[in-house]
Amino acid sequence: MKHYSIDEIQGWDRFYRTNFVNSLSGFKPVSLIATVNKGGIPNLGVFCNIVHIGADPAYIGFINRPIDAAPHTLSNIRGNGLYTINHIHPAFISSAHQASAKYPEGVNEFDAVGLTEEYKVDSIVPFVLESQVQYAMELSEIIPLRMNNTFLVVGKLMHAFIEPAIISKDGFINLQEASSMVSLGMDAYYTTQPLARFQYAKPDRAADQIDF
Amino acid sequence: MKHYSIDEIQGWDRFYRTNFVNSLSGFKPVSLIATVNKGGIPNLGVFCNIVHIGADPAYIGFINRPIDAAPHTLSNIRGNGLYTINHIHPAFISSAHQASAKYPEGVNEFDAVGLTEEYKVDSIVPFVLESQVQYAMELSEIIPLRMNNTFLVVGKLMHAFIEPAIISKDGFINLQEASSMVSLGMDAYYTTQPLARFQYAKPDRAADQIDF
Repeated sequence: MKHYSIDEIQGWDRFYRTNFVNSLSGFKPVSLIATVNKGGIPNLGVFCNIVHIGADPAYIGFINRPIDAAPHTLSNIRGNGLYTINHIHPAFISSAHQASAKYPEGVNEFDAVGLTEEYKVDSIVPFVLESQVQYAMELSEIIPLRMNNTFLVVGKLMHAFIEPAIISKDGFINLQEASSMVSLGMDAYYTTQPLARFQYAKPDRAADQIDF
Repeated sequence: MKHYSIDEIQGWDRFYRTNFVNSLSGFKPVSLIATVNKGGIPNLGVFCNIVHIGADPAYIGFINRPIDAAPHTLSNIRGNGLYTINHIHPAFISSAHQASAKYPEGVNEFDAVGLTEEYKVDSIVPFVLESQVQYAMELSEIIPLRMNNTFLVVGKLMHAFIEPAIISKDGFINLQEASSMVSLGMDAYYTTQPLARFQYAKPDRAADQIDF
């Protein structure tokens, strides 16, 4: 392996450095976040820095870039506190990636990229009809990250939509059966293949494998 | 698809709900975080809620569970501000999962799970020798998430170690060639397969695919 020091990395061309650092921390759970503005016009954005924060209450967070670079999702969430998160699958990967383009405020990005608004459970924010794993969130807190003007947006899970056939008897969701994708860097998309699932690990003995 | 409301989810058995909610937000960039305590004894932990926060300066964050559930990594980082993050590959997946067991304070978890400490670049914290993508971090800020007593730990990248052959000419890292894994839920591990890489998306036309 080669050693890359931060001094060397900081000396690189901006585009090369951005690709490198974005890739270094690994594959990410890429999803489309949908919001609506005050006029009810829906916005879509591609987000991959999504974290599980807690199961009870069910909190999920995501990183939003600085407001100048990515204003619409955050301002819409500030407006009404609601958003949906929709997994991305190979069948609509081109349309999903297109949602990362910076459309002007007020453009219906579902129409612009060719995805379909789905309204249900009285949500004012649409889900992405083409997505096989959808969930609706209510804003809990927007936490500014002062070191670089990004934000951790934390929400509470309100609704989930999934095909029951892909849920194991212990509640585990076999997302590979929905072909939910991961992303790498700023622009690459991958599918996954199951390798192993293990028992809860304990100090006194090696954990056995379990069924998916 | 079936609708699961939060009222229904909150009524489930704790273990079922934890599996479900942990899986819902998608595949995660699972890695081993190594730290050392005041006596220099190394600790290892499995972390998957890792986020890219910025490329310049290069900030990467991770979620740490409440201190009672996961004390060692956080207290070691508070002590000396240093940690290494090491990708997980199929060749040592059982050992890596074993690092999620709650060993008592002061146990050398490299020894306990059968992985090898690698000391280099004058780091007091070891890297995981078996890992093909390793990076060293310096603590920037520990941000308490008050809603459930978890923490967002943000660090600055200091060093990266990677095989140059897997880095594309634009800085993108082909992590599938290192078989860097993702995890799902609390206990399942996956490899990835590349599907597509795209140009930067612009509003006026569909982004073409590019080479990995």
